[in-house]
Amino acid sequence: MAEELKLDKITSLAKRRGFIYPGSEIYGGLAGTWDYGPLGVLLKNNLKNSWWKKFVLSRDDMHGLDAAILMNSKVWEASGHVGAGFSEMLVECKKCHKRFRADQVEEKCPKCKGEFTEKRQFNVMFKTSIGAVEGSSSQVYLRPETAQGIFINFKNVVDSFHPKLPFGIAQIGKAFRNEITPKDFIFRVREFEQMEIEYFIKEGDWKKQFEYWLGQIHEWLLEIGIEKKHLHNREIAEEDRAHYSKKTIDVDYEYPFGKEELVGLAYRTDFDLKAHGLDYYDEETKETLAPHVIEPSFGVDRAVLAILNEAYQEDKMGGLSLASASEASRGGEKRVFLKLNPLIAPIKVAIFPLLKNKPKLVKKAKEVFGMIKAEIQPVMFDDNGNIGKRYRRQDEIGTPWCITIDFDTLESNTVTVRDRDTGKQERVDIKELTCYLQERLK
Amino acid sequence: MAEELKLDKITSLAKRRGFIYPGSEIYGGLAGTWDYGPLGVLLKNNLKNSWWKKFVLSRDDMHGLDAAILMNSKVWEASGHVGAGFSEMLVECKKCHKRFRADQVEEKCPKCKGEFTEKRQFNVMFKTSIGAVEGSSSQVYLRPETAQGIFINFKNVVDSFHPKLPFGIAQIGKAFRNEITPKDFIFRVREFEQMEIEYFIKEGDWKKQFEYWLGQIHEWLLEIGIEKKHLHNREIAEEDRAHYSKKTIDVDYEYPFGKEELVGLAYRTDFDLKAHGLDYYDEETKETLAPHVIEPSFGVDRAVLAILNEAYQEDKMGGLSLASASEASRGGEKRVFLKLNPLIAPIKVAIFPLLKNKPKLVKKAKEVFGMIKAEIQPVMFDDNGNIGKRYRRQDEIGTPWCITIDFDTLESNTVTVRDRDTGKQERVDIKELTCYLQERLK
Repeated sequence: MAEELKLDKITSLAKRRGFIYPGSEIYGGLAGTWDYGPLGVLLKNNLKNSWWKKFVLSRDDMHGLDAAILMNSKVWEASGHVGAGFSEMLVECKKCHKRFRADQVEEKCPKCKGEFTEKRQFNVMFKTSIGAVEGSSSQVYLRPETAQGIFINFKNVVDSFHPKLPFGIAQIGKAFRNEITPKDFIFRVREFEQMEIEYFIKEGDWKKQFEYWLGQIHEWLLEIGIEKKHLHNREIAEEDRAHYSKKTIDVDYEYPFGKEELVGLAYRTDFDLKAHGLDYYDEETKETLAPHVIEPSFGVDRAVLAILNEAYQEDKMGGLSLASASEASRGGEKRVFLKLNPLIAPIKVAIFPLLKNKPKLVKKAKEVFGMIKAEIQPVMFDDNGNIGKRYRRQDEIGTPWCITIDFDTLESNTVTVRDRDTGKQERVDIKELTCYLQERLK
Repeated sequence: MAEELKLDKITSLAKRRGFIYPGSEIYGGLAGTWDYGPLGVLLKNNLKNSWWKKFVLSRDDMHGLDAAILMNSKVWEASGHVGAGFSEMLVECKKCHKRFRADQVEEKCPKCKGEFTEKRQFNVMFKTSIGAVEGSSSQVYLRPETAQGIFINFKNVVDSFHPKLPFGIAQIGKAFRNEITPKDFIFRVREFEQMEIEYFIKEGDWKKQFEYWLGQIHEWLLEIGIEKKHLHNREIAEEDRAHYSKKTIDVDYEYPFGKEELVGLAYRTDFDLKAHGLDYYDEETKETLAPHVIEPSFGVDRAVLAILNEAYQEDKMGGLSLASASEASRGGEKRVFLKLNPLIAPIKVAIFPLLKNKPKLVKKAKEVFGMIKAEIQPVMFDDNGNIGKRYRRQDEIGTPWCITIDFDTLESNTVTVRDRDTGKQERVDIKELTCYLQERLK
């Protein structure tokens, strides 16, 4: 399928099935904002939990953090974000007053053919005012990255935990940028979520640590279900690197609109700690130094989009040799399914009574539903429409297993478990059902 | 201990041990903002996960949501937040230009004895501008509550999931209010996190549902470790209720600074859905109606503070009959400990080699550490200082169990497990250790 078309299909499925809705939609929207619906929150939480477990909970050298979005503006002065460091060069049309990124337009305004002003800086940080007392109310910014919240707490974490180098501080949180042209669904947005690690090291180790973290990034991306062949390391040339970085590699993903950054890895040197006047006393060498920093920076929304793109599949069910008789008989009916890693899938299991008007089937199905739900969450119950339709509905949201309670169940205490990807069905004893599913969820 | 003193002690412990740091501290702070440190994030996540599991994952009638913080300002016009509905009445001193809440001052300015202006409205929503194109850039607000993000997605959720009444939509997320006087640690702040449910019902059921949700609120607060006797329902008088509410009960907690709101429960009638022009088609009765709403609204930070206050304890270890010989011999040494519910405690288990300079003990301790960590997270390893000091450090952060690997361990493959609250020690076989802990964590 054409790649641009695929983005439309994913956007449409995401809205229709309750993954992601356009922000403020009933009021005409607000460009660059999106609301995660019930299935989107579950998917996003699974992703964040997987990251947090791997990079924080399972490690002995990592400290979590959750700093405020609103920070004293001195933070952004010190970091270089106020001023030229975090600006876009814009031109404005003298006739229609629209603004454009200087590097994206020619001489004349594409809207009205008017002439442009000289290029000028436009800072993409959102400003607001804090405080109610006249004269002392002050301008603050919505953070454009979570990283600075980590740096300014460096000394706090060192004082509380006395970590030895190397160690890291990790944070998941919202950040905001007043993007000139939000586009590509949840890829380029004005409100987004980041998962960032600042890993503090000795200067001499930077090459080794850079390689290590590049490996860790790839490892996690494969774990959540992204194919290796869709990932591409791209080293950023010196003239394009951020002012603080001595080496940056973007891990690009093959989005429908092209290869674009999914994760960034930057060697930030000691720029940030020095900018904030922070240092570290090394107990071993008895010297005071500013540690150097390796920064793996993941976009949550970009990861959600990559996963949806990776999982989105269309096939003809009847063409699958393993499809059930009832599905095969539907003769090559096209289906859409999300081939999500079961750990990331929003709904783990769906439970169906074969017929909704047979109280014995419904009662038994509710029993099975209750039993599974006590151990595995979330589980969905669906008794609406024929089984084929119910399978399609679950396929579309990526539910790995559908369990049907039929008349045989009442005799043999077994159910059919249908696999999302193959359409293959197995009969499983209800007594073994929870273990069967838990085993496959590992 | 004096209650005000207790708040100081909790604030100090929270900072020293890495639970909560003042926001932007190295730049002189930013009033009303706080940063959660490594242990604070773990505690807060445990709390949020407990809420999400109870009210979303375990229920069949609840849909999660994660709407954007930035919304079209028409949302706030429709909801009544722009205008008088969400303002404070302020007076300004004509001489020093400081502002005060009109209901909190007398005739003359308390700072300089100057005269006040007439009262006027001050809206506590933070404003910012979005969009880069001249003329079309528009004013937006940082949401002052998560509730409206739910209401404006009502139709989206109904279209995706076709839920039958009653059903709910739940959201955890940040909200912002430009409070005139932030105070009382993380209680009255300018950036905070909410956990809100909008539960949609038929009008006739509102009293029954209101009672039900009042029960659910109390049930959860007890589950996370708050004592019943510290909770007080307070019905809000008509003249003090929000403009949309027909009945409101605040569930107050006995904070060190007095009884204050921890959770709010409001019957919002059909005010919000009507304000946004949203309705619902009831398949059963074949009629279109605007459902009524019961809203349980929890403050995450207020819950964290309540839990810390509830858990903070001082005692004399030697006075405990069950304390170990080594602890008892320290003869009534005062200790501080956090009596946290193990499910909420940031660190579940700490592992100590008795002596750090005995390689065999350290090696064995690392083995046990690895074994436990594979099943229970997070676990801490500590080999620094004598065992008594290590116990005190874990007591102070609320770690339920400390495990010591001593010389007996090398012979008998058993370790001591020490209970935080009683100081009692048990020898447990390493083979049974994981089960022993998992059993107690349930």
